[in-house]
Amino acid sequence: MDSKLTTPIALEDATELLKRKYELVRKHTEAICKPLAIEDYVVQPVADVSPPKWHLGHSTWFFENFVLQPYFKNYQVFDPHYNFVFNSYYESVGARVIRTDRGNLSRPSVADIYRYREYVDHHMSLLFDSGTITSKLLPLLELGLNHEQQHQELLYTDIKYILSHNPLFPAYTEAKIFEDRAYQTAQMLHFPEGVYEIGFQGEGFCFDNELGRHKVFLHDFQIAETPVTNAEYLEFIEAGGYNDFLFWHSEGWDWVKQQKAYAPLYWHWIDGRWMNYTLAGLTTIAMDEAVCHINFYEASAYAAWKEMRLPTEAEWEIAAPHLDWGQRWEWTESAYLPYPGFKKAAGAIGEYNGKFMVNQMVLRGSSVATPIGHARQTYRNFFHPKHQWQFSGLRLAK
Amino acid sequence: MDSKLTTPIALEDATELLKRKYELVRKHTEAICKPLAIEDYVVQPVADVSPPKWHLGHSTWFFENFVLQPYFKNYQVFDPHYNFVFNSYYESVGARVIRTDRGNLSRPSVADIYRYREYVDHHMSLLFDSGTITSKLLPLLELGLNHEQQHQELLYTDIKYILSHNPLFPAYTEAKIFEDRAYQTAQMLHFPEGVYEIGFQGEGFCFDNELGRHKVFLHDFQIAETPVTNAEYLEFIEAGGYNDFLFWHSEGWDWVKQQKAYAPLYWHWIDGRWMNYTLAGLTTIAMDEAVCHINFYEASAYAAWKEMRLPTEAEWEIAAPHLDWGQRWEWTESAYLPYPGFKKAAGAIGEYNGKFMVNQMVLRGSSVATPIGHARQTYRNFFHPKHQWQFSGLRLAK
Amino acid sequence: MDSKLTTPIALEDATELLKRKYELVRKHTEAICKPLAIEDYVVQPVADVSPPKWHLGHSTWFFENFVLQPYFKNYQVFDPHYNFVFNSYYESVGARVIRTDRGNLSRPSVADIYRYREYVDHHMSLLFDSGTITSKLLPLLELGLNHEQQHQELLYTDIKYILSHNPLFPAYTEAKIFEDRAYQTAQMLHFPEGVYEIGFQGEGFCFDNELGRHKVFLHDFQIAETPVTNAEYLEFIEAGGYNDFLFWHSEGWDWVKQQKAYAPLYWHWIDGRWMNYTLAGLTTIAMDEAVCHINFYEASAYAAWKEMRLPTEAEWEIAAPHLDWGQRWEWTESAYLPYPGFKKAAGAIGEYNGKFMVNQMVLRGSSVATPIGHARQTYRNFFHPKHQWQFSGLRLAK
Amino acid sequence: MDSKLTTPIALEDATELLKRKYELVRKHTEAICKPLAIEDYVVQPVADVSPPKWHLGHSTWFFENFVLQPYFKNYQVFDPHYNFVFNSYYESVGARVIRTDRGNLSRPSVADIYRYREYVDHHMSLLFDSGTITSKLLPLLELGLNHEQQHQELLYTDIKYILSHNPLFPAYTEAKIFEDRAYQTAQMLHFPEGVYEIGFQGEGFCFDNELGRHKVFLHDFQIAETPVTNAEYLEFIEAGGYNDFLFWHSEGWDWVKQQKAYAPLYWHWIDGRWMNYTLAGLTTIAMDEAVCHINFYEASAYAAWKEMRLPTEAEWEIAAPHLDWGQRWEWTESAYLPYPGFKKAAGAIGEYNGKFMVNQMVLRGSSVATPIGHARQTYRNFFHPKHQWQFSGLRLAK
Repeated sequence: MDSKLTTPIALEDATELLKRKYELVRKHTEAICKPLAIEDYVVQPVADVSPPKWHLGHSTWFFENFVLQPYFKNYQVFDPHYNFVFNSYYESVGARVIRTDRGNLSRPSVADIYRYREYVDHHMSLLFDSGTITSKLLPLLELGLNHEQQHQELLYTDIKYILSHNPLFPAYTEAKIFEDRAYQTAQMLHFPEGVYEIGFQGEGFCFDNELGRHKVFLHDFQIAETPVTNAEYLEFIEAGGYNDFLFWHSEGWDWVKQQKAYAPLYWHWIDGRWMNYTLAGLTTIAMDEAVCHINFYEASAYAAWKEMRLPTEAEWEIAAPHLDWGQRWEWTESAYLPYPGFKKAAGAIGEYNGKFMVNQMVLRGSSVATPIGHARQTYRNFFHPKHQWQFSGLRLAK
Repeated sequence: MDSKLTTPIALEDATELLKRKYELVRKHTEAICKPLAIEDYVVQPVADVSPPKWHLGHSTWFFENFVLQPYFKNYQVFDPHYNFVFNSYYESVGARVIRTDRGNLSRPSVADIYRYREYVDHHMSLLFDSGTITSKLLPLLELGLNHEQQHQELLYTDIKYILSHNPLFPAYTEAKIFEDRAYQTAQMLHFPEGVYEIGFQGEGFCFDNELGRHKVFLHDFQIAETPVTNAEYLEFIEAGGYNDFLFWHSEGWDWVKQQKAYAPLYWHWIDGRWMNYTLAGLTTIAMDEAVCHINFYEASAYAAWKEMRLPTEAEWEIAAPHLDWGQRWEWTESAYLPYPGFKKAAGAIGEYNGKFMVNQMVLRGSSVATPIGHARQTYRNFFHPKHQWQFSGLRLAK
Repeated sequence: MDSKLTTPIALEDATELLKRKYELVRKHTEAICKPLAIEDYVVQPVADVSPPKWHLGHSTWFFENFVLQPYFKNYQVFDPHYNFVFNSYYESVGARVIRTDRGNLSRPSVADIYRYREYVDHHMSLLFDSGTITSKLLPLLELGLNHEQQHQELLYTDIKYILSHNPLFPAYTEAKIFEDRAYQTAQMLHFPEGVYEIGFQGEGFCFDNELGRHKVFLHDFQIAETPVTNAEYLEFIEAGGYNDFLFWHSEGWDWVKQQKAYAPLYWHWIDGRWMNYTLAGLTTIAMDEAVCHINFYEASAYAAWKEMRLPTEAEWEIAAPHLDWGQRWEWTESAYLPYPGFKKAAGAIGEYNGKFMVNQMVLRGSSVATPIGHARQTYRNFFHPKHQWQFSGLRLAK
Repeated sequence: MDSKLTTPIALEDATELLKRKYELVRKHTEAICKPLAIEDYVVQPVADVSPPKWHLGHSTWFFENFVLQPYFKNYQVFDPHYNFVFNSYYESVGARVIRTDRGNLSRPSVADIYRYREYVDHHMSLLFDSGTITSKLLPLLELGLNHEQQHQELLYTDIKYILSHNPLFPAYTEAKIFEDRAYQTAQMLHFPEGVYEIGFQGEGFCFDNELGRHKVFLHDFQIAETPVTNAEYLEFIEAGGYNDFLFWHSEGWDWVKQQKAYAPLYWHWIDGRWMNYTLAGLTTIAMDEAVCHINFYEASAYAAWKEMRLPTEAEWEIAAPHLDWGQRWEWTESAYLPYPGFKKAAGAIGEYNGKFMVNQMVLRGSSVATPIGHARQTYRNFFHPKHQWQFSGLRLAK
């Protein structure tokens, strides 16, 4: 984690702004959970999906552990066992519940966790008002809020997974919560070869993995203005794309065979037609929307079938001002690796990003489920190539 | 399943009695769940432990599926998906949720399931009052209630497992719910060799696996009047019993090494002393109570260390009138096999017991968690030799 | 292990006889391996099947470890590492190569192992001629030879498995090596109820698990004079026996589904007809021979389909003088448990049988692959219910 | 696969040269296997290590399947089953033995496979002399030989693994077969930022993944002239490097804990000192030689501990003319991804490289086990980050 909050505004104003942002972000997390039954907060169908109550506790633990404990004088932890339960992967901060066990814990209860949130929010409020916040602390607070926003999107993806893996196919809400755009076949945009610059620069928050800004040489390339649609992806399915290994990575083909994969994650072939599980329940497929819930193997196989490829993350970032993006996290052909000059922060916070820089692929953009204001053109999201449960799609390049 | 309810009392009286029993049994199931938080109903830490809400639904499904659907005219099922969710292992009755998935289902919610129970109870009440119950139906109703009583004990064992596998060690209730007796070193009782009879006979309910009564030849044997105590078992631990393979079955020794087993299931060595997780939370060990939560391998190794053995189930049954039993399910040296002349019932009910007659060991008696009136001297309980989570102990023989 | 060699003949004559038997048995083991290529000695396709070279080494290690080391003065072990490589499961005698790793060891080479056999045979010969053999030692030598005979049968079963699991289906030998009898539909023999005696008695060798002779009460029963044939088993297959769970144990049904089982182990449905892999290669099925290579689940399901059952081991032993047996190891309905009064021998030899007395079923009789003179009516063979790779079949009872 | 053999020399001369190279390469493969016992050819201790006899057959199958079948008129395959046994991963060419099963096949025997090699070599010789070889065929022949050279190195790595995982620690040969250089602490070489070119260019053979030559922008960097030595790596071990997660990727730390890793693959801590299994058996560690048999996680953790990093593959290639390389395959910080403009060849040969371009890291250079003349500065080797069994080490950069 790092940041560039070299604010020209006064410290007290910056603190005040952040306090307000803190309140909004924290409330939004709880708003996402509003439609859930208590039972929905608890289960963990697969290791990568966490129970909603864990997200609520973990994002709170972040503030308790990294902010209140070191910076709030004489702070009493809410419950000393919670570090064990809500630590996700910070090896520096003691034992943690292994990920696959999260769904086995009925306690702390949901009510306990909301009390925990209230307790921490109350102390955060006191801290914000205490006059003890220094400019050095602001970036850490920003990080905590961005961290919580990441978990807001994970709440959507994990809730969707949990409800979808229930034979009753319950809806999360009947309300329309995301704005999905309609697309036609994409125009290809041309960019000439040359030395470009990528990476974060300027004021405002960014993650450590976006730093520092640096030069890259790009050969001339073309990139689609808009993402691949459901209609286009369906052509791939109907052309037998899931049955021909020539389009797939070797690992991808193993995945297809093992999972008996034949379509994006939430597509179901029921009574002779394609249905799509959405947060509003089972529906028909909106053909002109961007394809969603595909993994890197699928994105890459589709591109191979189109005799094109995925863009690299540098190409994506250079082209971004000209692209229609923000509907789907877009798989790129770039592995998640350190930028030249990447530096880990000191201490446990330094574990935030660097230690994942192996065997993951970069996704760029943001999705309908990403909190407003969270993403930017230099943002580097990353997941293992096999994962489908994010709001992930693709854009073609050549 | 089978039964011997050749009641001399009038059908209407028998029906009335059973209706009353139905109400009591069903209420007791819910009373067991009273102290639970909603979240406790949902989780499944290991495959053999079912979520409490599943027990509530499954025992209800039994009445809906086997009683109401065939015998209540124009009965409308509460929800057609529930057969899929709450069928446990009746292959005859359609697809079922595989056992390890039970903990991934947040829906139906706990409230849904209580509504389901109410709906089924209401229709059962109508059925009882309808005048259509025949003497042929009574055994099936008895079976349903005995089935539910089995799940009452499983509720206790599964709730205990769920709460114990939480780093917070929450108590189920502070109240004392079981009556544990205190024991001294056991007296050995002698029985002469001869032809004896075992198996169920007479009136009242029994399971199919207790039939028919038959002769066995027993050589003379000795059997302890009382079960092995915690104090006695602790001697085995302190003598290095878990470190010497000579006392163990080959499979048992593999289990010890793989699980790094060193004590009964809920014993913890904390800060230099033995603690015991109970439904009232972590406590010290009551040394004069019967040892509990050991598996067959442990029971057998303890007996080998004492240079004795476990009784066979026939020895146990013959000696039972002279024994102090009822505190722990007692592992025997008998595998769970059909009695001579065992017959499966026709249809799905025939799956009740016979299909488990391989690779399981018989336990005799009953435990503090067994519903009053459920057990009898001819009762044959059975579990895989590795299981510790039942209220299981042992009694020595030679 | 135990024995009843209370020989009335002189010690030197007994020793002389045993020396001769030693030579014959040891030579026969090597004769079994004669047709093998070096490569065939090495592989281990599944954990339960050992490489032939391991059998050659292990049976030799038995004599080196239990006879030569304690009883041959100043004996030098052939190679101190061999204890580690060739110990099978004697926990008392140091570390051992875990079973699944046997197929990963290219050394010691086959030639090394034959040198090892020669070295041990030479020292055994010297021991036999030394005049130091006492009557106390004779039972141990008998045990070593019976142990080696058990591995002779395992050599056949394991070689068959190894060659059968090769896409080239190589033959072990073109020669006819086993005498298979032809059968018609079996006659049922009747036995009246009463107290009978089973277990070994008299002179000659037996394993510890056959002792001591004891009384059992049997209800009247019927048992087939001859085993079930391939033709009869084929009817079960054609009647859909592998598709109807009602005939199967719960575990057995899981096995069917997981293995996609549809026939005995070495049957293949090729180009519209049933073929059978035998030690002479792929052949058509001899319909009037006893069905072979089925596991307990299959044997039991077949019997259920015939509305009969498997005999208990006591029934089998009482009926044996009147039965045509010796073609197949016959699954019984008896779990492998200690006889009343069973005692383990002291020391590592005591691990021979007792520690396997859980989760296995008894097989009675012997098979075409059993060395002549090895089996007897009281012999108790045992395997896990899932195993098909022995020469195992069944006989009906009711 | 692709190539640049735009030879100015006459076709007949080129053919003659390639024939000679064919003979030398094929003989060298067999020379590597000379010291093996038959048994060593057969085993497969882990999925990634293939039995030597499989390498011998597979490299031969390549010529039979891709050269003789399409280009030798009326060619009769040696054995139609061999395609099933020796196909490695070419999905286009029919069913194949799954990788983990290779060690279960005792047949074809080693002698069979040598006969197969002789048969194919004979027909290749006839083909070379037939006058039918066209300039279009030459690149395919070159590919076959380069493919076989890759398997020559794999023979060394796999033989080493097989012999090392035997409790007898047998030596492959007492002779010194590799020339290991001695190193001091490395000098750091400086390179200025700028646009560079990497990728293969010019005449001679290269793999498809090295094409086409393209521009990259490099920021200024430093790179060590020589690789990290055993002495230097030992400092990392002694400083507790394997106990501090801060140096490791998250996946790497999981690997350390799961494998209980504490040193390079063949290092053993025996009787208070470090020993190293080599092809000549167990020896002490040559401290001034380059560290070997470490995986990407270890290489990366070492670099982090030194507060440096691994070079990218572009940095390595630019610096290569100034580096002392060729002792170890050197892990880079670059994931194995397609170069700009990468194109797969048509057909099964197109499966050669492209389909592995996910979840693997690039290694540059070559090792003591690489056949002479096989490697070049643009060569891109690749393995999963967890693999240690290659002759892999590292070089520092910053």
